[in-house]
Amino acid sequence: MSYKYAYNTRDIKFILKEWLPTEQVLAYDRYKDYYSLDDFDTIIDQVRKISEEVIAPTADDGDTIGAQWRDGQVYIPESFHKAVRFLHDNGWATSNLDMEAEGTLPLVLLNFLYEIMAAANPALFAYHGTGSGVVSVINHYASDELKKKFLPKLLDGTWGGTMCLTEPTAGSDVGDMLSKAFPTDEPGIYKLKGQKIFITCGDRDDMENIIHLYLARVEGAKPGTKGLSLFITPKYWVNEDGSLTSNDVQCIGIEHKLGLKGSATAALVVGENNNCRGYLIGNPPDEEGVGEGMMQMFNMMNEARLDTGRLSTAVAANAYWAAKDYGKERIQGRLMTNPKAGRTTINKHEDVKRMYMLNKATTEACRALLGKCYFYEDMREFDPDPERRKWAQGKMDMLTPLCKAYPSDEAWILTAESLQSYGGYGYCEDYPAANSTRDCKIWSIWEGTNFIQSMDLLGRKWLQGKGKLFAGVLGEIDEYLAKYKGNFPGMEQELENLEKALAAYREIQMTIGGFMGAGKIGLMPIYARRILTATAQLYCGYLLMDQAVIAKQQTEELAPDHYDYNFYLGKVLSARYYLNNVVPNVWHILEIIKMADTSILEAPIEIFDF
Amino acid sequence: MSYKYAYNTRDIKFILKEWLPTEQVLAYDRYKDYYSLDDFDTIIDQVRKISEEVIAPTADDGDTIGAQWRDGQVYIPESFHKAVRFLHDNGWATSNLDMEAEGTLPLVLLNFLYEIMAAANPALFAYHGTGSGVVSVINHYASDELKKKFLPKLLDGTWGGTMCLTEPTAGSDVGDMLSKAFPTDEPGIYKLKGQKIFITCGDRDDMENIIHLYLARVEGAKPGTKGLSLFITPKYWVNEDGSLTSNDVQCIGIEHKLGLKGSATAALVVGENNNCRGYLIGNPPDEEGVGEGMMQMFNMMNEARLDTGRLSTAVAANAYWAAKDYGKERIQGRLMTNPKAGRTTINKHEDVKRMYMLNKATTEACRALLGKCYFYEDMREFDPDPERRKWAQGKMDMLTPLCKAYPSDEAWILTAESLQSYGGYGYCEDYPAANSTRDCKIWSIWEGTNFIQSMDLLGRKWLQGKGKLFAGVLGEIDEYLAKYKGNFPGMEQELENLEKALAAYREIQMTIGGFMGAGKIGLMPIYARRILTATAQLYCGYLLMDQAVIAKQQTEELAPDHYDYNFYLGKVLSARYYLNNVVPNVWHILEIIKMADTSILEAPIEIFDF
Repeated sequence: MSYKYAYNTRDIKFILKEWLPTEQVLAYDRYKDYYSLDDFDTIIDQVRKISEEVIAPTADDGDTIGAQWRDGQVYIPESFHKAVRFLHDNGWATSNLDMEAEGTLPLVLLNFLYEIMAAANPALFAYHGTGSGVVSVINHYASDELKKKFLPKLLDGTWGGTMCLTEPTAGSDVGDMLSKAFPTDEPGIYKLKGQKIFITCGDRDDMENIIHLYLARVEGAKPGTKGLSLFITPKYWVNEDGSLTSNDVQCIGIEHKLGLKGSATAALVVGENNNCRGYLIGNPPDEEGVGEGMMQMFNMMNEARLDTGRLSTAVAANAYWAAKDYGKERIQGRLMTNPKAGRTTINKHEDVKRMYMLNKATTEACRALLGKCYFYEDMREFDPDPERRKWAQGKMDMLTPLCKAYPSDEAWILTAESLQSYGGYGYCEDYPAANSTRDCKIWSIWEGTNFIQSMDLLGRKWLQGKGKLFAGVLGEIDEYLAKYKGNFPGMEQELENLEKALAAYREIQMTIGGFMGAGKIGLMPIYARRILTATAQLYCGYLLMDQAVIAKQQTEELAPDHYDYNFYLGKVLSARYYLNNVVPNVWHILEIIKMADTSILEAPIEIFDF
Repeated sequence: MSYKYAYNTRDIKFILKEWLPTEQVLAYDRYKDYYSLDDFDTIIDQVRKISEEVIAPTADDGDTIGAQWRDGQVYIPESFHKAVRFLHDNGWATSNLDMEAEGTLPLVLLNFLYEIMAAANPALFAYHGTGSGVVSVINHYASDELKKKFLPKLLDGTWGGTMCLTEPTAGSDVGDMLSKAFPTDEPGIYKLKGQKIFITCGDRDDMENIIHLYLARVEGAKPGTKGLSLFITPKYWVNEDGSLTSNDVQCIGIEHKLGLKGSATAALVVGENNNCRGYLIGNPPDEEGVGEGMMQMFNMMNEARLDTGRLSTAVAANAYWAAKDYGKERIQGRLMTNPKAGRTTINKHEDVKRMYMLNKATTEACRALLGKCYFYEDMREFDPDPERRKWAQGKMDMLTPLCKAYPSDEAWILTAESLQSYGGYGYCEDYPAANSTRDCKIWSIWEGTNFIQSMDLLGRKWLQGKGKLFAGVLGEIDEYLAKYKGNFPGMEQELENLEKALAAYREIQMTIGGFMGAGKIGLMPIYARRILTATAQLYCGYLLMDQAVIAKQQTEELAPDHYDYNFYLGKVLSARYYLNNVVPNVWHILEIIKMADTSILEAPIEIFDF
């Protein structure tokens, strides 16, 4: 009774049709005979309509009925069954990853369609989205035989998929997992034994079978992450004739969560009766006991990280638009700047507009960041030039930790601002804001906590390719500044802030480098979270400024009563707001880092008893 | 099954016995024959024990059973009845406000006892705490006759109390309320008609009667807040012989909330059958139609604002200590700074310590701020010198918006950090963190939203008494700096930051003054929220530094194996962390304000459709 779908797709169309060089993607062999930019509006509108009419009506069931577990089986709301089926049957889900099929949707578009759909019920997204990662891993790494066995039914949504990493004693610390795999007489088939927790859609009653990608250590392989291998481990074993028999995969319960209650977070026990089999993907551990599992899983994990950023952006943006709609109706108070005009709808109040603007600018920033990666994804997969594919992979490597952590950190703040804008009603579950705050909190944790993302950024991505890849990302901002400085009237202060932030960011890198050189290694993890945020703010500031070039020109060309005028004006104002109110944080954090405060490092843990 | 009470009272004892000049309060006539500082530890320990053993076991009932409404009556969990009764019967509740009684607890102590109790179940606090505000208003403003009629049973907890402001169409905009009062033939008695919502403990089944302080407009009085009057409006009319009969006060429902589910948030309809009577407090509206209601209600409101800051601090601190206890047991990963030491409990991880330190320093900052006000409260009530009473009131006026808004803003961030420190378990309701995030969100909204607090600060408190009162608050920091600069070894950088922040703050005031002078009035509400935060950070930075003077000396005098050494060390580290990582925000916000970005003000509301 409370969820409200209020999504607007104009910014997505802008990104795809006006900002990104999407034509380049559409020229790839995979797409060139099927799509032109002119088709995008229709497709997006159709998915917007499906999201409102098919998906959004299931959201309240997800939150109030939720996923339920009884006697070893998870039951998801009836309404979810129908909606998931609809999405698979109508080509809005995994079928687009079919490498044999023709006319599949470009990834850059598909990813944005997922955003539009996810906003309508983020818990439902798990049921039609998690299969994608499984398909992707099988596409990239499995033998033809395994592809033939598992892909068709994953692609048409007869079967679901999961990824199984976390164990009760091994979460962030995945290399310490206890799951074991034992070779059998059949080549490539192993017996598995272990326990997994926090498995999204780990069980469900709407699919004939569930294909788990299960991470385990082959007996005798190296300790740590290096020794892990990945196994296709179906809930039901698929016999030669296609019939299914139990594979000793038990769901022993689901978590009772703060939000996303429609999505089952399952605990699985495999091989309890010594009867669980899995297919090894790729090669067995080599002579040194090194397996291919983590590398393969990271393919899926990196996609899951983008998914996480997308879910965060979608939920925050929808919460904002729902709040904004409420603000049009709710009359309360007088304007500080014009009290004599009498009572007014709250959407005109200065501080309410501030809450909306923070939401608008930040979600647009996140969407721009993700859009870049979606574009690179198509390039990495389908560009004919292997050098360009590699280049695109490099860009994705750099941006993935930002895509995962920044939107999921901000969602907590942004949804709270949306909630606040309702006044007391925001705290009531009959209005949609409270639900959104609850849903979004997991995203700063799963798929690698945001601290892990920040250490990935500082400890790995800054240095990858001798630092050239990350320097290339910063170099985009240099190029932008070289092109537009002194050449973007009305945006002088914003350009100045971008330039100052870029210089400060480079100084942050040097300062951290200096700490490392001086053996002050502990200062890196202490500041890592704030540096990741600053990185995203700098890069997103550039992206919004880049979008503003197009938008500003439109505001100058269109009449103010043109139906699109306020969209473009809004884009310009988003950039101005973000550059003047958010991006200055980059040099602020530099100042803080330079103080090199060691209070945390010096603190014995006993002080926290008080 | 999930709530965990993990409160530590050492900082409270430090504030009361080592930092605040509490002896001054204990010398007042009201207390001097009854209490010495030596009694405080025993009392605090006793309340800590009661909180753990009597209150905390009710917390899960509050969240899982919650308050329920059936057929016009609110039912609260059975366990709440017993705990509330226990607190009243044992002198831990409203009885301490009995002006006729002897040996009541000093307010500065009582307020901290409430913190200790509130942390054990913040929803239950409403049932033994809301009566205090009603007692206080009656104490200050009601006739002796009304005092005699209502106080005894409010003081002994036979009756509960509420304050009734908000109406469906008048929340922040209280002056627009529609409730009406009509004189009757009996002097001082009015017929009331209206509807109120969001009334905390507006109905309950554990009390014989509920005394509502009901804000309404006497027919013909001025519009806006000036025309309002306040009425003692009991749920059951108290007849001359003490018997009770219906007073036409109906509870028509309660809200379904994100958190604080044990506390009933009621909608009331009064006078639906034209049969609700209330006693006017004080005088009827004067010839110009001006009533005394808002002034009287503000007495209660200001207390409720301190309560809100206290609840926020209590919940955040308890969530942090519960998280810290979990961190002692949970083994995961290796230290970045010492990976070879092998797997470790998570409480040693750098980023987990960062989360704890942010929580520790910020909750201590909030507690110090509130403690100042509790001290002033005793002074305002019981100091023999009327000039000093007035002076104390002035200090409270300045600090109240900070006490309400800063802890309630921070609680959302702090409880999220505590939740994050659990990893995935933090998102599961079987662990205590999720509940705390849900509980705390209302506090940035109720009792005047945090935007209202920030406008109160900038628009009213900065200017009150021609600006001298607020200048006096900043002057405390000048005095501190004059005393300790160059004279506090090891804290040089922290002192420098405090000085820089103070100068920046004064420049913020001038900058805003400049905007107002230039007619750029809209820039004030745009930056008000951030300025309030900066104000609290500056003042709290000073308070933590003031505490650090005492603590640092102790660390130098005590041996590191002394049982109290780590407490004092922790106080010093809190100050260092806060001054180096939080207080710099003051000059950061100055920089941002000086950019005078007008994007929000220029934005037509139509841009938020996209």
